[in-house]
Amino acid sequence: MNIRTKPLAILGSTGSIGTQTMDIIRKFPEHFKIVALSCNSNIGLLKKQIEEFKPKIVAVYDEEKADELKVDIPVYKGMDGLLKVASFGETHTVVNSLVGSIGVLPTIKAIENLKNVALANKETLVTAGELVMKKLKFHQTELIPIDSEHSAILQCLQGSNLEDINKITITCSGGAFKNKTKEELQSVKAADALQHPTWNMGAKITIDCATLMNKGFEVIEAHWLYNMPYSKIDVIMHPQSIIHSLVEFKDKSVIAQLGMPDMKIPIQYALAYRQRWENEDLPKLNLSEKKELTFKEPDLERFPCLAMAYDAGIKGGTLPAVMNAANEIAVKYFLQDKIKFLDIPRIIMKAMENHQLIKNPDLDQILDIDKRVKEDTEKELQK
Amino acid sequence: MNIRTKPLAILGSTGSIGTQTMDIIRKFPEHFKIVALSCNSNIGLLKKQIEEFKPKIVAVYDEEKADELKVDIPVYKGMDGLLKVASFGETHTVVNSLVGSIGVLPTIKAIENLKNVALANKETLVTAGELVMKKLKFHQTELIPIDSEHSAILQCLQGSNLEDINKITITCSGGAFKNKTKEELQSVKAADALQHPTWNMGAKITIDCATLMNKGFEVIEAHWLYNMPYSKIDVIMHPQSIIHSLVEFKDKSVIAQLGMPDMKIPIQYALAYRQRWENEDLPKLNLSEKKELTFKEPDLERFPCLAMAYDAGIKGGTLPAVMNAANEIAVKYFLQDKIKFLDIPRIIMKAMENHQLIKNPDLDQILDIDKRVKEDTEKELQK
Repeated sequence: MNIRTKPLAILGSTGSIGTQTMDIIRKFPEHFKIVALSCNSNIGLLKKQIEEFKPKIVAVYDEEKADELKVDIPVYKGMDGLLKVASFGETHTVVNSLVGSIGVLPTIKAIENLKNVALANKETLVTAGELVMKKLKFHQTELIPIDSEHSAILQCLQGSNLEDINKITITCSGGAFKNKTKEELQSVKAADALQHPTWNMGAKITIDCATLMNKGFEVIEAHWLYNMPYSKIDVIMHPQSIIHSLVEFKDKSVIAQLGMPDMKIPIQYALAYRQRWENEDLPKLNLSEKKELTFKEPDLERFPCLAMAYDAGIKGGTLPAVMNAANEIAVKYFLQDKIKFLDIPRIIMKAMENHQLIKNPDLDQILDIDKRVKEDTEKELQK
Repeated sequence: MNIRTKPLAILGSTGSIGTQTMDIIRKFPEHFKIVALSCNSNIGLLKKQIEEFKPKIVAVYDEEKADELKVDIPVYKGMDGLLKVASFGETHTVVNSLVGSIGVLPTIKAIENLKNVALANKETLVTAGELVMKKLKFHQTELIPIDSEHSAILQCLQGSNLEDINKITITCSGGAFKNKTKEELQSVKAADALQHPTWNMGAKITIDCATLMNKGFEVIEAHWLYNMPYSKIDVIMHPQSIIHSLVEFKDKSVIAQLGMPDMKIPIQYALAYRQRWENEDLPKLNLSEKKELTFKEPDLERFPCLAMAYDAGIKGGTLPAVMNAANEIAVKYFLQDKIKFLDIPRIIMKAMENHQLIKNPDLDQILDIDKRVKEDTEKELQK
């Protein structure tokens, strides 16, 4: 068999998705080679990755750290550096596992340079979904979600037509605080949230899981990825994280994707897209060991972020970008124990209420609002 | 839109699958017309169906009943009649919902006459799987399973390659006696078994569900339909009958088909094959109402028929036909309260042990053995 080696660039290579992506690449050296890497500031790990995978360029977002890195390949820095990695010449697929809205521009740059994008950065579609989908269509490149839920939906849709969908149901583990009362939620700390019951992930997304904002992001992403009205996107609580999402068709038949909660499964699916490769490192699902799968409606009273995300998504325009920007700051402060858990939705709600919505914003408007809301929110919190 | 009206023939039109098939046809008069019907003996209902759907020919398997039927279209009788319906000129798809091995020849006749077959008759593939699959390949026609489990697998495989499958898992409600001890199974009656917990079906298949022989049949059918070795076909107990089957791929991702346990869903899927039509009569699945789905390994000690079917399938040749023939007689006697529930596996086991297996049998050999085993089993039981 003639195997094509896909040149890959990885944005955020030292994070949770980045390092798990490398586990998959190590397993299939005949299928992939890494040509470009970027990290935020962990240059120690980046240096090891450079030695192992021999990329042709790297970028370090933190400019001081970039200057400290001594290697014999070009080192770029800041947002310019990320964009260099995102658009590097021979790359076939860019894995975008950046955290936060800094992921938006690199995704767009990759698409404009005709790369496929394997997307783990949620903020790309939350803040600039409409623009990104237009760019994809124009440049005829592919965006393959790494998120387990959207990977599940993509897999459920193989061989089907989007027009035949009745409803998409995104499953939700419920996060670290799913069983806490509203009372108890007053006093929970970041350290408690970082013990996610089923998935092993980075800090920011683990907090987003605990507030259900992450699920709200996924609803907005599903809207853009699968061209679905919000009325056809449901969320259901499923604490075992075994069914990763479901698609109901017009004939009431439902297709679901299941698997052990291990991000390496959707990462491999995204990298190998449309191919299924044997990989004995990936865990097998054994339903009779699991014994039961349970389901219930989400509690929007205890977890208002999910309802806020539907609201932002339906109103559209710049509102999802505002919600995301306020959330990024709120989560940053919560991780530093400077605000309480229930302050997160309050802060976001306030930012959304204060915002004058702009319909059909262009990229500059979105990036400008992202910056402005972050600054305003920080200022407010530092008072 | 230009709609093609598919001419259909229905074998077993007055039974459970037959009448539910008509519910679907009534819903989509622009898509289907009925050109031929057959029943076993219920000529009262057949007459009504003739008035409503105006087929061009009908057949009644029971020859005396056939003579009683007075209508102004040709009425054929016996096996010849079924074969006339199966091969009727303009038919596009033959729905075979016959019960028992009398379904084998009509399936083959339909394929030889270049009809597609929507198959509910389990015995076709259990007794003559290899032959039927060869005929399908030779005549380039399609066999679309109506069985909810095989419909589920077919739906899970859309857009995928059979070579990428790691394992097929067929789910099993457990039947009417799933919670009975071996002791209690000594004294259960046919009337108890006919209360199936989730599915509404005919009498014979409901008993086969209670013994798990039905699940054994489905394992053998899956082997032929999806060209799977028996080592890659699993059965899992799932009493809620919501997940209808699952396919695990090489990359450990699992695709499942779910839905309310209503045979009209897989019937519509088979008739509309590759299309998904809105039908508000079909029930929607609401997982948060269901609350939980449970799973466990089958108990082969209490329900030995499933293990016997694996054994028959793996050894192959004429053995599955022998197992099926003995089962048909045993179930007939159990339905008449002439034997006990636990006699069913004993009778089948004995027939299988007494049989001298023929490898690669031709159709005549299979039909001959079917007839002989049925006669011998009846003789034994009448002693």
